[in-house]
Amino acid sequence: MSKILAADIGGTNMRMAVVSQSAVGAVIEHEYRAHVALSEYRAPSAAAAETYVIQVISEAMRPILQQHAITAVGVGFPGFFDADGETLLASPNLPQLKHVRLASRLSDQLSCVVRMQNDALCAALGEWRDGAGKGQTDLLHVTLGTGVGGGLILADSPFVGQHGMAMELGHVRTACGELARMCGCGGSGCVETYASAQGVLKSYQLACGDEHGSSVTDTAQVAELAKDGDAAALHAFEQAGCHLGKALAHVVTLLDLRTITVSGGLMGAWDLLHPPLMASLNEHVIPMLQGQVVVLPTLLSDQAGLLGAAELVRMELVRRT
Amino acid sequence: MSKILAADIGGTNMRMAVVSQSAVGAVIEHEYRAHVALSEYRAPSAAAAETYVIQVISEAMRPILQQHAITAVGVGFPGFFDADGETLLASPNLPQLKHVRLASRLSDQLSCVVRMQNDALCAALGEWRDGAGKGQTDLLHVTLGTGVGGGLILADSPFVGQHGMAMELGHVRTACGELARMCGCGGSGCVETYASAQGVLKSYQLACGDEHGSSVTDTAQVAELAKDGDAAALHAFEQAGCHLGKALAHVVTLLDLRTITVSGGLMGAWDLLHPPLMASLNEHVIPMLQGQVVVLPTLLSDQAGLLGAAELVRMELVRRT
Repeated sequence: MSKILAADIGGTNMRMAVVSQSAVGAVIEHEYRAHVALSEYRAPSAAAAETYVIQVISEAMRPILQQHAITAVGVGFPGFFDADGETLLASPNLPQLKHVRLASRLSDQLSCVVRMQNDALCAALGEWRDGAGKGQTDLLHVTLGTGVGGGLILADSPFVGQHGMAMELGHVRTACGELARMCGCGGSGCVETYASAQGVLKSYQLACGDEHGSSVTDTAQVAELAKDGDAAALHAFEQAGCHLGKALAHVVTLLDLRTITVSGGLMGAWDLLHPPLMASLNEHVIPMLQGQVVVLPTLLSDQAGLLGAAELVRMELVRRT
Repeated sequence: MSKILAADIGGTNMRMAVVSQSAVGAVIEHEYRAHVALSEYRAPSAAAAETYVIQVISEAMRPILQQHAITAVGVGFPGFFDADGETLLASPNLPQLKHVRLASRLSDQLSCVVRMQNDALCAALGEWRDGAGKGQTDLLHVTLGTGVGGGLILADSPFVGQHGMAMELGHVRTACGELARMCGCGGSGCVETYASAQGVLKSYQLACGDEHGSSVTDTAQVAELAKDGDAAALHAFEQAGCHLGKALAHVVTLLDLRTITVSGGLMGAWDLLHPPLMASLNEHVIPMLQGQVVVLPTLLSDQAGLLGAAELVRMELVRRT
C-alpha cells in the first residue's frame, strides 16, 4: 500500500509523519513539525475560522505531499467529529467552527482522500492497531497530560457517540462534597482535576502547604521528589491514581472492557501511578470483574496519535476497495 | 416472516409469547406462563444444572411450538452471554453453569434456530426496535425493579462486553464514605442500593425511623405515601432519582448517548422519580452535554423483554438469509 501523511494537531503545534505499511505494521518514515496558532487565533467569523484552519493545515502539508508519493491524509484534531470523520461538529479551541465539512474541504485543497477525527480517538486507534492494545476488539486508551482524555474502540471500530464527544473521561466526577475541586469544564470533582499534570501539582502544593509547595511548579519535579520518597509528592500521585482508578472502574462496570492502555506526559511517573490506580480500580469495580482488567502503558510513546491518524484514513481506503 | 417464540426467564417464572411481524412492527399474538425454579434449584453438578435448564425450558416450549408455526426461538435469560448469544458464560442464579453452549443444546432439543441473551439486554433490544428507543443508533435501556439493570445498544447492535457483563449499571458506585450502603454484589454505595425497589423502601424506613417505617413493607406503599405528600416517602424517591441520575451522568459523559429509556416495577412512581433524576443527571454530566439527553419511560411496559428476545433471533434469521 502506498504512503499516508498523518498529522496530530494541537493548540500551538502540528506534528506530521509519512507513514508506510510494512509486514509488521505501520512504520513512520519521516517526521515534520509546524507551528499553528489554533488556541490563539480569534476569527472574525465562522467562515474565516474555517478558511484559516484549512489554510494552515494545507500549507504545512503541501510540500510534504509533493516530496513523497502520498495517496491519503489522516488528521487528529482537537475537536468532536461525526462517526465517519467527515464533519467537525465542534471544537473547544475554535468555538465558531460548528458542523463544518472540514475533511472534504481539505481533500479539495490537497487533491487526495482526507479523514479527520478527534485527537484522543486517533491515539486510541494507533494503540489498538500497532501498540499495547493490539488484538483487542474493545479498548479504552487514556491520555494523561495537561488534561485526561479518552478514546474508545468498540467491536473493532472507533466509537464517537451522538455528538462526537464519547469518552470525555477527564470529566467523570470522582470527588464530591465541598472539597471537590472546580474544573475548567464548569463542573466540580472531575477526575482531570486530580489525575492531570496540573492536578498532580495541585495535590502536591496542597499537601505540603504554600511555603514548600510554591517553589515546585512542574509535575516532573513532583515525580522526582516522589521517587526520592517525599511524602507530599507520593501522596499527590496516590491521589491521581486513586481518582483515575475510580473513573476507570465506572468504565469497566459499564462496558466490561478487558484492556485499557495509557499514554501521555505523565507516563514518566507510571511506576508511581500504576499501583494506586489498580488498587482503586479493583476496589470500585463490580466485584465480579475484580482482577479481570489490565491497564498497560503505551508501546508507541508519543507516536500513537500519528499512527492512529494514519490508521483512520487507511481504514477508509480499505472500505473503498 | 413466520412466527417466533419469545421467552423471558426469571428466577421463578418464565413468560413466553408467540410473536409475528406486521407492517408496523412486532405483534404479540399469544402469551403463556410457566413456573421455573432457577433461583431455588441446587444442581449436584454442572452437567446436571445444564440438563435441568434445557429440560425446563424445552418442556415449557414444546407444546407451544407444536401448536403454532414457529420457526425460531429467542430467549432472555438471567445470565451473561457472548456477543452472538450462543454461549452462556456465567449465571448468578446457577453459578455452576459456565461457558455452556446453551443455545445450540436448546436448538437440538427443539429442532429450530435458538438465540439467547441477557434478559436486560433483551429488554433494551425490544425498546430499541419497537418502543421508546425506536430509531436510535445508540440506546441505554434501564430496568428498575428488584435490581437496577441496563442493556446497551451501540451502532444498532447489542453490546455485551468481554465477559457478557456490559452495563452492570446497578453496580456503579454513586455513594461513598461510611454511610454508603452495602450491596449484595459485595461492593458498597452501588446505585442499586438506592434506586431499586428495596433501595427506595430502605430510604423511606431510614428517613422516618423504625416506629413508622417498619409498618411499610412495600415500595408501592411508599409511592402512595409520596403522592399524598409524605415527606419521608418523597425523600426516598428523591434519593433514588438523585443516585440514578449520577450513574446515568457517568454513562452519558462516557458514551455521549442522546436517549435513555426506562422500564420495570418502579415505573408506577415515574412522576416521582423523573424530576430528581433529570436534575441530578444534568448536574453531574459534563456541562457540554447538559440538556442534551432525554430519559423516556418505556412504551412497551413489561413486554420489552419478550419483544427483544424475538428481535434477537429475528436479527439472526436476517443474517442467515
